Amino acid sequence: MGRGTCEGKTPISPMPSIRITVPTPSHQALVPVTDKIAQAVGLLGIEEGAVHLFVLHTTCGLLINENADPDVARDILRRLEEMVPWRDPKDRHGEGNTAAHVRSSLVGSSLTIPVQGGSLVLGTWQGVFLAEFDGPRTRQVVVTAV
Amino acid sequence: MGRGTCEGKTPISPMPSIRITVPTPSHQALVPVTDKIAQAVGLLGIEEGAVHLFVLHTTCGLLINENADPDVARDILRRLEEMVPWRDPKDRHGEGNTAAHVRSSLVGSSLTIPVQGGSLVLGTWQGVFLAEFDGPRTRQVVVTAV
Amino acid sequence: MGRGTCEGKTPISPMPSIRITVPTPSHQALVPVTDKIAQAVGLLGIEEGAVHLFVLHTTCGLLINENADPDVARDILRRLEEMVPWRDPKDRHGEGNTAAHVRSSLVGSSLTIPVQGGSLVLGTWQGVFLAEFDGPRTRQVVVTAV
Repeated sequence: MGRGTCEGKTPISPMPSIRITVPTPSHQALVPVTDKIAQAVGLLGIEEGAVHLFVLHTTCGLLINENADPDVARDILRRLEEMVPWRDPKDRHGEGNTAAHVRSSLVGSSLTIPVQGGSLVLGTWQGVFLAEFDGPRTRQVVVTAV
Repeated sequence: MGRGTCEGKTPISPMPSIRITVPTPSHQALVPVTDKIAQAVGLLGIEEGAVHLFVLHTTCGLLINENADPDVARDILRRLEEMVPWRDPKDRHGEGNTAAHVRSSLVGSSLTIPVQGGSLVLGTWQGVFLAEFDGPRTRQVVVTAV
Repeated sequence: MGRGTCEGKTPISPMPSIRITVPTPSHQALVPVTDKIAQAVGLLGIEEGAVHLFVLHTTCGLLINENADPDVARDILRRLEEMVPWRDPKDRHGEGNTAAHVRSSLVGSSLTIPVQGGSLVLGTWQGVFLAEFDGPRTRQVVVTAV
């Protein structure tokens, strides 16, 4: 939390949450957002505790995975395509993007990440990604101190 | 958080969490619970921060997806059935509901949703659902201010 | 939260988070960690609120599922193997463990669990597991009061 102690050492943040905008480049993409989230943690004044991320959409998600070899991101998207094929003649949803809705619920719409000393706590190989499943679009992420 | 500031403007909530009951109508269902969660946020007195939802069961889950076209919920359940078929002769669990346990861990047992001005922060098309994978049953959700 | 009330009844925790180490026994395993997490909740002095768990790795995850019949854990791992096979000739990631990365993002890298009266709030059949998808290894989990 790092907010609202009685001694006033950690002043109450003027903003409990902020929104960041993430343009996505293609129909499917894992867009790296670690730097944007780290910046938001600074703006929110979070020192110790955790930060919560939440996408305001139902055809994308948020996930943490390897940020070193970009082939990992490509493999993840291709494996999801194999598990949840884009076309399925049994789908009833008129927009034709049922697969994106399913993938969104499989990877999840939100993440919570620890913060220590004002910085995100991530393992050596971990990066934060917005997982676009029906782009390109402009996505919004709500970042909240928890 | 909205709890425990020094000036006393936001009094410490008498309840840090409450439980809500969700009856599910059939073997598989995405049961809309957005209204119940919004009501719980009011009862808990959360103004700014986030709310955490947690099901006390291992054969259902919680997810956020489209609340406009009910075909999306139907498609999601049918796609999960294709990915994780109910019957698999290799399953060893004696109760025969392994698929429900697997689907529970894929969609997840909990959610955290931002709160601003006492209201859930959700995108235009987002609704909160309890995902029943082995009903009908009466499910319990723990709602906690975080 | 249980931290930082004005009356001083609940003193500010000296540690906002701690790390626990989880050795995993085999290539795939659901390792029970409920007792370790409960102990960490005590060390952190969390009384009411929630605890957040976060693995610092991209080839394992955290999940909640049945802790009674060990066949459930075995079935879950085997079903994940069927959904996300270890070998896929289309994978490009050179380390050959793409499947572990995918399974990690499907089950998720983190969990948040309610705490009441200093104890984890879990349903009768729920246990917390570290899901190892590319072991054996020694894994680290960050445990944070939220």
